[in-house]
Amino acid sequence: MAVNAEGFSFEQRHGKERVRVGRVWKNRAGRHFFVEWNVSINLLSDCAAAYLRDDNSDIVATDTMKNTVYVKAKECSEHISMEDFAIVLAKHFTSFYHQVTTAIVKIVEKPWERVYIDGQLHEHGFKLGSEKHTTEAIVKKSGALQLTSGIEGLALLKTTKSGFEGFIRDQYTALPETRERVLATEITAAWRYSYESLSSVPQKPHYFTERYLDVKKVLVDTFYGPPKEGVYSPSVQNTLYLMAKSVLNRFLDISSIQLKMPNIHFLPVNLKNKDNQTIVKFADDVFLPTDEPHGSIQASLSRSWSKM
Amino acid sequence: MAVNAEGFSFEQRHGKERVRVGRVWKNRAGRHFFVEWNVSINLLSDCAAAYLRDDNSDIVATDTMKNTVYVKAKECSEHISMEDFAIVLAKHFTSFYHQVTTAIVKIVEKPWERVYIDGQLHEHGFKLGSEKHTTEAIVKKSGALQLTSGIEGLALLKTTKSGFEGFIRDQYTALPETRERVLATEITAAWRYSYESLSSVPQKPHYFTERYLDVKKVLVDTFYGPPKEGVYSPSVQNTLYLMAKSVLNRFLDISSIQLKMPNIHFLPVNLKNKDNQTIVKFADDVFLPTDEPHGSIQASLSRSWSKM
Amino acid sequence: MAVNAEGFSFEQRHGKERVRVGRVWKNRAGRHFFVEWNVSINLLSDCAAAYLRDDNSDIVATDTMKNTVYVKAKECSEHISMEDFAIVLAKHFTSFYHQVTTAIVKIVEKPWERVYIDGQLHEHGFKLGSEKHTTEAIVKKSGALQLTSGIEGLALLKTTKSGFEGFIRDQYTALPETRERVLATEITAAWRYSYESLSSVPQKPHYFTERYLDVKKVLVDTFYGPPKEGVYSPSVQNTLYLMAKSVLNRFLDISSIQLKMPNIHFLPVNLKNKDNQTIVKFADDVFLPTDEPHGSIQASLSRSWSKM
Amino acid sequence: MAVNAEGFSFEQRHGKERVRVGRVWKNRAGRHFFVEWNVSINLLSDCAAAYLRDDNSDIVATDTMKNTVYVKAKECSEHISMEDFAIVLAKHFTSFYHQVTTAIVKIVEKPWERVYIDGQLHEHGFKLGSEKHTTEAIVKKSGALQLTSGIEGLALLKTTKSGFEGFIRDQYTALPETRERVLATEITAAWRYSYESLSSVPQKPHYFTERYLDVKKVLVDTFYGPPKEGVYSPSVQNTLYLMAKSVLNRFLDISSIQLKMPNIHFLPVNLKNKDNQTIVKFADDVFLPTDEPHGSIQASLSRSWSKM
Repeated sequence: MAVNAEGFSFEQRHGKERVRVGRVWKNRAGRHFFVEWNVSINLLSDCAAAYLRDDNSDIVATDTMKNTVYVKAKECSEHISMEDFAIVLAKHFTSFYHQVTTAIVKIVEKPWERVYIDGQLHEHGFKLGSEKHTTEAIVKKSGALQLTSGIEGLALLKTTKSGFEGFIRDQYTALPETRERVLATEITAAWRYSYESLSSVPQKPHYFTERYLDVKKVLVDTFYGPPKEGVYSPSVQNTLYLMAKSVLNRFLDISSIQLKMPNIHFLPVNLKNKDNQTIVKFADDVFLPTDEPHGSIQASLSRSWSKM
Repeated sequence: MAVNAEGFSFEQRHGKERVRVGRVWKNRAGRHFFVEWNVSINLLSDCAAAYLRDDNSDIVATDTMKNTVYVKAKECSEHISMEDFAIVLAKHFTSFYHQVTTAIVKIVEKPWERVYIDGQLHEHGFKLGSEKHTTEAIVKKSGALQLTSGIEGLALLKTTKSGFEGFIRDQYTALPETRERVLATEITAAWRYSYESLSSVPQKPHYFTERYLDVKKVLVDTFYGPPKEGVYSPSVQNTLYLMAKSVLNRFLDISSIQLKMPNIHFLPVNLKNKDNQTIVKFADDVFLPTDEPHGSIQASLSRSWSKM
Repeated sequence: MAVNAEGFSFEQRHGKERVRVGRVWKNRAGRHFFVEWNVSINLLSDCAAAYLRDDNSDIVATDTMKNTVYVKAKECSEHISMEDFAIVLAKHFTSFYHQVTTAIVKIVEKPWERVYIDGQLHEHGFKLGSEKHTTEAIVKKSGALQLTSGIEGLALLKTTKSGFEGFIRDQYTALPETRERVLATEITAAWRYSYESLSSVPQKPHYFTERYLDVKKVLVDTFYGPPKEGVYSPSVQNTLYLMAKSVLNRFLDISSIQLKMPNIHFLPVNLKNKDNQTIVKFADDVFLPTDEPHGSIQASLSRSWSKM
Repeated sequence: MAVNAEGFSFEQRHGKERVRVGRVWKNRAGRHFFVEWNVSINLLSDCAAAYLRDDNSDIVATDTMKNTVYVKAKECSEHISMEDFAIVLAKHFTSFYHQVTTAIVKIVEKPWERVYIDGQLHEHGFKLGSEKHTTEAIVKKSGALQLTSGIEGLALLKTTKSGFEGFIRDQYTALPETRERVLATEITAAWRYSYESLSSVPQKPHYFTERYLDVKKVLVDTFYGPPKEGVYSPSVQNTLYLMAKSVLNRFLDISSIQLKMPNIHFLPVNLKNKDNQTIVKFADDVFLPTDEPHGSIQASLSRSWSKM
């Protein structure tokens, strides 16, 4: 995408970020459906003239991109998955503007969940949940597609069945080995679908919404193990790998998955006074939770030998 | 509490804030219980000398306060409500230090919730939820108590059965009247218990944890109305009042409740181009969610004639 | 302000928060002046009917309050201090609406500072600084005024001339005494002016802007001491008190000042490995900065015997 | 770096993030120097066994990485630039551990600035400023180096000499053309140095600290133009390009620069009431500042034909 600019190599993109849209749909039975999306659009387009000189004639104004989000949301007469909406938007930009060669659309959904009142789902009531569903669609003028879905802010913790032993010990090592610790993380996941062109995307409504819920369930189940026994984690690394592998083994249209699983530490509390007398002695009971520093463990697992 | 300081009136407090503690308890059946609390301690104490001159002899070091949180968490051999823990801590400071006349302990709980795996509660697995349980215990040396519990970050939304009409119209008024809008808020609630001395506090374990869940249910149910029909809200003001009244009517040991219910706006999307042609016309379908500005509605309802 | 509501005592306020406004003024010489303010308005008004039943006829819509901010900003034809603007707004609400008994207007200024380019002030260029100027004007229908100005986020640090000794030692005390530590804080200050009616406010333009800068200078100078020697701080408490006293001694139209000075800890780094061998030994050189927990020191100093 | 894992392609890294360190140095004249750094370390290393099975024998514990930050900070007996410190750390990991093939060290500096008191620099007093200096050093076992420096949070604004005209107009376009608007941005910059091996890095102390200040000055000067006249910006795109070009033209050891310059909108305020009567009419005076949505403009300019 680089172009020659006065002897330098030049690459650029422009877009509109943090475009927020809420959309309500109503079905015949009177039930309301509701989503709130935060949309980011970035376009790769042939508009170097705007950078190099005072010529905006090839620029899609970012205000126009924002308007388009609302137009397309309006045009969605049926409740649509955010993956499909991202594709609709991206496809619009590459087909409507001859200057645009690639459109990158990201969406983060605010986790509004239909409430239960007295055990019944409410027709039009929603409550904010925790982790967020994300997606990214990259569409080229040719129709080539990269479609990714993911999760942000999935915070999981288990109070036992976790340890860390046998690591490298050297002159800078202070960490004791353990087979009993709290394991806590806040997962960011992103998985790539194998649909590589606009024409190959499944047409079933809510296909990707269901996939999202299913992938999340596999990740969560693998992290915790069975309700009674749990499962021993010898390292965040191993748990991450088993989670990634479970997803690829289960969902054949997912070609790769990336997981970021920071190790959020719950430090054992041991306190002594100045004279080295014990104030508190740790017995797998009292912890100091910390946000910083944290371990940083991330990996990607793919069907083919590609780079994520 | 004011003292004379070189001819001025002087008031002070000191403490330790953001003390984080995690506590695990295990029952005989192997089930783990887990809480994560963020504790703030502030002491009113006779230590003006530290301010007026170089004399720290009446100062409880804030580091010592922090240690005490861990000591007391350790001493809680049974799973305890955060209200009871706040009282334990506050009582310690007023009884242990002759200088301390009043202790103010606030706790915010991180909303770790036991997970379900395949429909069963997990023995030691927890996932982060959304809104937060809070408490504040103010204890005087005399044993006098002010005990408050609350909720932070309870974000609720309904897509219909909300309007706003008949308000003051003047030369600065642009808002149209409506009987159909999205109603969204992020509730901060705080309710005061009628237990006014340490000796009067209910001894039943988890009494306050259950109260918290019950109060939250009453607030939420009143906001949404029945699952099928909902309930019409003529203003945030009216909905707030009905929520507060329901709590006081239902829970006789709650003497007052304060609710803050910002009106978080979901603006109708209407777009026109420069020539005044319609790009998007609103039909109760496409909204622009905004965080700022927001309406600010707050009120307190009390059994007796007290101040907010 | 409490009213009787179905047998309960009821208090309320409503308003609009996070109203952002930018204002540009140009002088004859072509110099631009610019402010960005975040305005919060809350009204105490006789509008209980809106809460108790479906009657909004005494409600000033929060949208109207927002519009009024822009109207009043427009009407300020000359560059005005934010204290004066808060007063203009508050006075408007209490005089224009018979229902409004008290108006509370808070403003936080975004710290845009005129830039220097090659040693010269720029005519229309501004760069974001750090700490923020704040104000609150409370105006009653009678013309009674409470005017407060303040600072948020003033983060100061000194690497020496600070200690903490002679505090209470007991079984929970672990902190060693020291005469050499890093002292860091993030000051929140608020001072009340002695002008207690609208008619008594100084008419000199930018009076309060200059006061703000002068008070900040006194606070900062007292914290650090002279450039060469500095000044020894035996406790955050003592430093806070000296800062407050300097302000009251210097500015006779300030009737009280409140300072919050969290003690933000820079922990000495001492590391040992499992066999108790030293990895790092502290020599007033390497520190671990932490945000949580932090000490919490706050106090108010007043000319008269009032409440904090 | 991908390896074969049970038939899948697998890539991983692990590290420690948000390691905070403060470092004080004192010179003979009694002047203190102080930095606070937030360090992130990520290692590419041959430790797949930890992921695939219960074998941590090739894992450098993230706790050990954290300790190493403090050890190396201790060993720096002289005030050192953060670029040099990042290189020291990264080099340590690749040379000390045979498993580690690449180390990626990022540092963000907290902008503590020496204060002036009465026009004199203080010996040991520091105040928090605004924008942040960043760096990233990527070191391979071979000694190959990628060294980047940057700025985060540089918020600039000018109240005139900015416009946007002649862009694409279509059915989704509502934005009017203008030659007079507020231009505001929060710049994130990153520039790559041409030193591609550990041995080629300049040995002059504080070389990179001075470069940082010089690059920042060029960026800022180009953005604003001369103090009296300023310079007209026909688009964020053009201003960004001129800033990037100025840096490459001026600093020959910088091989490329990336700039992200979100267009932070200050919307003209025009208000009408329901009957279409004007409440506020814009005259380049009253603005509504917004954070979302914002335009997103980014580009990179390189001496050679590389990827963004």
